[in-house]
Amino acid sequence: MQLDDLILISVDDHVVEPPSLGDFFRDNLPAKYKDRAPKVVRRDDGTDAWAIEGQEISTFGLNAVQGRPPESWGADPANFDQVRPGTYDIHERVRDMNVNGVLASVNFPSWPGLGGQFFVQSKDMDFAAAIVRTYNDWHIHEWCGAYPGRFIPLGLSGFALGPEWMAEEIRRLASMGCFAVSCHPEAYRFGAADYHGDEWDVAWQAAEETGAVMVFHFGGMPNFMPRSPFSVIPHVMPFQTAIFASELLWSPIFRKFPKIKFALAEGGVGWIGYFLEKADFVYDHHRAWTHEDFGDKLPSQVFREHVQGCFIDDLTGFQLRERTGIDMLAWECDYPHSDSTWPTAPEVLWKSIEQAALSDPEIHKVTWENAARWYNFDPFEHRSREECTVGALRAQATDVDTTPREYGSTDHGRIMDTRNAAIFMERNSTATHGRNA
Amino acid sequence: MQLDDLILISVDDHVVEPPSLGDFFRDNLPAKYKDRAPKVVRRDDGTDAWAIEGQEISTFGLNAVQGRPPESWGADPANFDQVRPGTYDIHERVRDMNVNGVLASVNFPSWPGLGGQFFVQSKDMDFAAAIVRTYNDWHIHEWCGAYPGRFIPLGLSGFALGPEWMAEEIRRLASMGCFAVSCHPEAYRFGAADYHGDEWDVAWQAAEETGAVMVFHFGGMPNFMPRSPFSVIPHVMPFQTAIFASELLWSPIFRKFPKIKFALAEGGVGWIGYFLEKADFVYDHHRAWTHEDFGDKLPSQVFREHVQGCFIDDLTGFQLRERTGIDMLAWECDYPHSDSTWPTAPEVLWKSIEQAALSDPEIHKVTWENAARWYNFDPFEHRSREECTVGALRAQATDVDTTPREYGSTDHGRIMDTRNAAIFMERNSTATHGRNA
Repeated sequence: MQLDDLILISVDDHVVEPPSLGDFFRDNLPAKYKDRAPKVVRRDDGTDAWAIEGQEISTFGLNAVQGRPPESWGADPANFDQVRPGTYDIHERVRDMNVNGVLASVNFPSWPGLGGQFFVQSKDMDFAAAIVRTYNDWHIHEWCGAYPGRFIPLGLSGFALGPEWMAEEIRRLASMGCFAVSCHPEAYRFGAADYHGDEWDVAWQAAEETGAVMVFHFGGMPNFMPRSPFSVIPHVMPFQTAIFASELLWSPIFRKFPKIKFALAEGGVGWIGYFLEKADFVYDHHRAWTHEDFGDKLPSQVFREHVQGCFIDDLTGFQLRERTGIDMLAWECDYPHSDSTWPTAPEVLWKSIEQAALSDPEIHKVTWENAARWYNFDPFEHRSREECTVGALRAQATDVDTTPREYGSTDHGRIMDTRNAAIFMERNSTATHGRNA
Repeated sequence: MQLDDLILISVDDHVVEPPSLGDFFRDNLPAKYKDRAPKVVRRDDGTDAWAIEGQEISTFGLNAVQGRPPESWGADPANFDQVRPGTYDIHERVRDMNVNGVLASVNFPSWPGLGGQFFVQSKDMDFAAAIVRTYNDWHIHEWCGAYPGRFIPLGLSGFALGPEWMAEEIRRLASMGCFAVSCHPEAYRFGAADYHGDEWDVAWQAAEETGAVMVFHFGGMPNFMPRSPFSVIPHVMPFQTAIFASELLWSPIFRKFPKIKFALAEGGVGWIGYFLEKADFVYDHHRAWTHEDFGDKLPSQVFREHVQGCFIDDLTGFQLRERTGIDMLAWECDYPHSDSTWPTAPEVLWKSIEQAALSDPEIHKVTWENAARWYNFDPFEHRSREECTVGALRAQATDVDTTPREYGSTDHGRIMDTRNAAIFMERNSTATHGRNA
């Protein structure tokens, strides 16, 4: 097998919502809410933001830097003219996927928050529900629908609208062929119950019955030191993910819903082998008094049955694949975030594939088969398998210019000293509670 | 090499301070403070606590369960009659070490807090300083001094008394042959500066010059879900440790003090291989704009030069030893905490040694050589090498009864539902701020 023969499904990329989403809201929200439709505003300082219910939310910065030279990633692009069009334009996005050899992609939201938390902070729950549904419709029909077979649609759970509402939305999404639902790892911070009780059972049941995957994307910055430099943030994302994964494992969910599927986005996979070893140690060592009970299985087995992790480039994860379980590893591109390896993702990945000596069947599992199975997605429905490879897609993209260029930035836009990114994440927004968490 | 040939130095065990420490305070504090000497009090409900400055601090529970059957670990021992004497009596402790084949041990404090944080919350800094110094004297001369060659002494840093004071104490400890100093990973939570500035340089300089190891022991419960079950706590300790390790790596400390030594206690080591891979990815991927600079080295190399991790049983850590660097791995026993593998620690360890096929030189490194080198400790100063092995020590301990037994518990003592241990940790204490953190 050669690099050009790879088939790539990315389970974690991001859409920077285009201004046309504002038109979609205006045209598709119930009539009584048309005046309150969220829209893009350009502010006096030249920055763009989404205006919703009196809040202004900005979502550029490190979330949209691919296409710029790395030297200027800290320059904080702040409007639609300062970012590569592939970040927000669906046609350019597909061209950027082609040039990177990526067949299909899961796209997380930007300004709604990774778990959709900004949509559900309204006190007007009926309005919030309309916004979430309309956003999901736009995502499925307009964004993903423009290029059949190129996207795995991802709906927002609207978690703060309550488990019953969420269950209904999970079923509605599934009826439209959407089998991925973005939840929030810290729903309890938004006034909801945590995941250790039975409050969410109705939602988990809907997910289990429809085959929907509950997806949790990380990006929070809890408990960092006051002066942590930027590098700490991407460095510890896997370990924050591990802590959440532990909460899931010891919650009643997996034992109560034997077929439910979860996915952890952005967290890497090199930690999972040790995570599973430690889980079994804790179970063996403490169960006599904690009365934890996984029946005839070990916690590690139960975790493998229910969770899929993903990685950008992860040699340790490859090397520990036997311990971890290769069926739970799925590749991600993370375009257009700063951690992305675009436009040389295949080359970066191939190096680790060779170093870890993955077999052809193993390569297929981690690059597309695991993702396709988990998300109930047939990559060859709309084109032949031969048309889906890195080589075939790149052959269509010979006119795509990937040369890094300066797209400009607003004057006030440079990240100070690369200090704690919370400063930068929150500066351009008036919605600060839970921002990026 | 056979199991009986192992030489074991444990870099993480715990002393439950005996009531006689109260006498030592009374006899050795400056005259003006004698009336304020901390002491053990038995309360009306039958529980024991340390009384200091109007606070009462209890330190039993899961911190002192070895010797009980696991079924009763949740029964929450609450006074000195309800715990195995080896937890607090130095002569019984050495017998418990012998029967477990452990030659030498680093002992962390119990009621002062793992980082000594409860000693330094007094508003009377002169009094707090006297308490820390007197405790350190007791630990070195009375506790460790009773059995030369069986303990690696560990001093408290008194971090909240300020970097100048801490520097002076580090030098005083070194002059007494103590080259391990317990610091707090979250000093900034106690009003001190975090570790990203130059405020602590004078203390780091004292550590570098004396060869003292700055030791950070984990045990906090930050940001757990409100209803997290107990098992989450030991399961995620390694990942909390990894997050702190990242803060250290990207702080200026290692680059500014090229010979300084740190140690991370209780955190396991199976995560370190991936941690280092990710550190190098972040450096390579973001340094163009973050301007991080590790000179002619990679972050992974710098980390290996400065940090030692430790493990109870860690097959993943063994299997990733080449990636991680075997020189940074050191064994721990964790007696008498609930995670300890006492009294069959050699057997548990041996199984992983065989499974990972460690060579004899590798075995010596992880069981004693790395610890001895890091802490400037000569294990054979007081006895021949032949007298130091598991087999030789156990031969002296044939009369030690390790049969688990019920030591009794107070009525109110059962941990409720094994819910978040914070409830249990804090229930018997009036000192709650930062307890166990």
